[in-house]
Amino acid sequence: MEQADLDTLVEFLRFPSISTDSASRGHVNDCADWLVDRLKRGGLDVEKHPTPGHPVVLAKNNHRPDRKTVMIYGHYDVQPVDPLELWDHPPFEPHIEGDRIFARGSTDNKGQLLAHLLGVEKTLAASRDLPVNLIFLFEGEEEIGSPNLEPFLKEHAETLACDVVAISDTGMVAPGVPTFTYGLRGIACLEVALKGPSTDLHSGIYGGAVANPATAVAQLAASLHDRLAGRVRIEGFYDRVAPLEDWESEAWAALPMGDKEMVELTGVPTLYGEEGYSSLERVWGRPTAEVNGIGAGYQGEGSKTVIPAEAMLKLSFRLVPDQDPKDVMALAQQHLEAACPAGLTMEIEMGHHGKPYKVDPHNAFGKAAQHALETTFGKTPALIREGGSIPIVQSFKDVLAADTLLLGLALPDCRAHAPNENFSLENFAAGIRLNQNLLEALAAEAS
Amino acid sequence: MEQADLDTLVEFLRFPSISTDSASRGHVNDCADWLVDRLKRGGLDVEKHPTPGHPVVLAKNNHRPDRKTVMIYGHYDVQPVDPLELWDHPPFEPHIEGDRIFARGSTDNKGQLLAHLLGVEKTLAASRDLPVNLIFLFEGEEEIGSPNLEPFLKEHAETLACDVVAISDTGMVAPGVPTFTYGLRGIACLEVALKGPSTDLHSGIYGGAVANPATAVAQLAASLHDRLAGRVRIEGFYDRVAPLEDWESEAWAALPMGDKEMVELTGVPTLYGEEGYSSLERVWGRPTAEVNGIGAGYQGEGSKTVIPAEAMLKLSFRLVPDQDPKDVMALAQQHLEAACPAGLTMEIEMGHHGKPYKVDPHNAFGKAAQHALETTFGKTPALIREGGSIPIVQSFKDVLAADTLLLGLALPDCRAHAPNENFSLENFAAGIRLNQNLLEALAAEAS
Repeated sequence: MEQADLDTLVEFLRFPSISTDSASRGHVNDCADWLVDRLKRGGLDVEKHPTPGHPVVLAKNNHRPDRKTVMIYGHYDVQPVDPLELWDHPPFEPHIEGDRIFARGSTDNKGQLLAHLLGVEKTLAASRDLPVNLIFLFEGEEEIGSPNLEPFLKEHAETLACDVVAISDTGMVAPGVPTFTYGLRGIACLEVALKGPSTDLHSGIYGGAVANPATAVAQLAASLHDRLAGRVRIEGFYDRVAPLEDWESEAWAALPMGDKEMVELTGVPTLYGEEGYSSLERVWGRPTAEVNGIGAGYQGEGSKTVIPAEAMLKLSFRLVPDQDPKDVMALAQQHLEAACPAGLTMEIEMGHHGKPYKVDPHNAFGKAAQHALETTFGKTPALIREGGSIPIVQSFKDVLAADTLLLGLALPDCRAHAPNENFSLENFAAGIRLNQNLLEALAAEAS
Repeated sequence: MEQADLDTLVEFLRFPSISTDSASRGHVNDCADWLVDRLKRGGLDVEKHPTPGHPVVLAKNNHRPDRKTVMIYGHYDVQPVDPLELWDHPPFEPHIEGDRIFARGSTDNKGQLLAHLLGVEKTLAASRDLPVNLIFLFEGEEEIGSPNLEPFLKEHAETLACDVVAISDTGMVAPGVPTFTYGLRGIACLEVALKGPSTDLHSGIYGGAVANPATAVAQLAASLHDRLAGRVRIEGFYDRVAPLEDWESEAWAALPMGDKEMVELTGVPTLYGEEGYSSLERVWGRPTAEVNGIGAGYQGEGSKTVIPAEAMLKLSFRLVPDQDPKDVMALAQQHLEAACPAGLTMEIEMGHHGKPYKVDPHNAFGKAAQHALETTFGKTPALIREGGSIPIVQSFKDVLAADTLLLGLALPDCRAHAPNENFSLENFAAGIRLNQNLLEALAAEAS
């Protein structure tokens, strides 16, 4: 690991580029400017495109018609940092301990994005050229569902035309085990607001005569699951779920991770999930309904005996092929409307959403990606799906007709989206080499 | 209304004496000191007693063995003020508009306490004596369940011996309608903490394989009620509930308040409650389980797709004769333990509690109180119960063997415990006269 590369990573991680927080807007933009400057210095043609949200940064080498065109996508925005008190070090003051660098965005996705950027820089510095036509596409809205990326792709479809897309924003099944991800879950988010009395009420004076929004929001959230079977109880939710293929269940059962690792990684007292499936099947191949946030009434120290005036509920659904996020949102809305308790009013706001994704890992580009992984890590890659969502992967397919290669560098204990997020410096270095091996392998596939 | 009395009220309301908030400890103590000073200047013997929590302020006139001894109780602590943004004026900067003064504590209980204090001051200034032996007992922990008051009563039982207790901390059924309250609901509070994963998790990477504490807390809260019948579903909860007496239902049905007023006062879209009862019966004569606070996960702007590591739930039960708060807490604990979803750990913390209270409104002191109300307001008083809880009323019965007269001055729209709490200045002035009429009526009863 060159010190200069590490210094660059630290610089990049210092930007608090939290895309969901409107107060951080300036920081997100500063981070985009930093990328523009860095890419220019590396020798690429760079454009910063404003959007109705945060900017897209686009960079290209000198394209030649006789070469394959490869787009590498990444995102420079990060998740919020709360609960801040659970971080051992400030989230935007990168801290190195052993092989890990701790900071918000270190794994998701700045560290992985930067590995590709540095790989390209080094190749250009050494050879003055790349083996392929390269497009870097870096956005600042992935953590809020990339609302402006698909419109951007459509508007710039010609400029962005490519043969294949590569992304490092997924995980490795274990340290040192190269991993090729051929499927992702989709996502559909929505938020529910319940209103009861016009103001918080004294629960002694009025308790018993009015519906309590805090109780009602709990009843709504509880209506989403069959607790005993761990299944989602929304009518029609499973109708379009494609069953797992036999080879997938077999391959996953042979991986160096499973229920035991799931308990260790999460720290839960016991596992819990849909009956009849292993942990990996549950997170990679089955859909979920999750409460990401619920809140009403007094949550501070001590007690306050109120009936709150309102309550909120943030839900997200993780989807698998062939579920459609818009269908699921409509089913969820029907369910919530039917389940809404009496005596209050409900508003549902649809949030971001993205389709689930699955490709054949055995096509030509897939094989090239696996070859690059094997060259970089010296091992046969694991073939997996992932439980997370990268909705734009489906947009690349829909708008640019390009498959996406997911070559992740995140370790299972990287704590993405959580306090003490971290990135393995070994994987950072491997990522730089992987970029170089990947562009070569894809160029060879092209010839 | 004398300007000096109003100025005194404003001074008293400026103290942010929030007893549940440890950061406000100094303010609670300052408020006690203000009372001590005021009572001394009024000509009473005053003692400030420290407790493990907030101080008790005790004041007496010159006691004579040939007179009845009357204790007047009040509390100088107040509820928290959040959600602060819903206040039209800062809660500790009293604001007068029309007949109302707006401030936290204006009705509950500083305004009503001060009316008694000023009534006594005026009588002493005019006659140099009172018609009874008076004990003022003012505490700073009513809003947190008076944890140190019963021990204080026991320790000072001889000093505090009295024939009857009077409290103005209840409501009037409508403006201008004097109201004598002969029953109160009891209370039992508890808090539940659920813990799942050791840290917040990415709901894509882990969703489906672990129990979600946000979902689980909703399931727990939802388990408390039969939604359709509006009844509490805890086994044994209703076993000791005494049915309403026929005369009560009849008297309440004739009051100038009911379902229509309940909708107007609360602003709910529709009423909701236990089947088979009127709104007044539901709040005065039936027990409840209320969620006062529920919280887990991300409640800020936008979305954050986490499985939270923990969740919290604050519950309170309002109890009616002959329910016992400790029994109910034990039943609730059993219920919660049995209902706790798999895959997480639960901790239950018992909170404050107090027995329900009911006296015969037709005994001698009750009649004297009704006489004082009639003299003050020029109307026959309404006889009601109230839904709120004043647990120490039961303590006065248990420790001092004294009944309590509840002569409330709170109007239905006073917003106690809520933003924009306010007190009627007309009732403030009436309260001063009521104190004078009450002491006379009780003295006459004694002769």
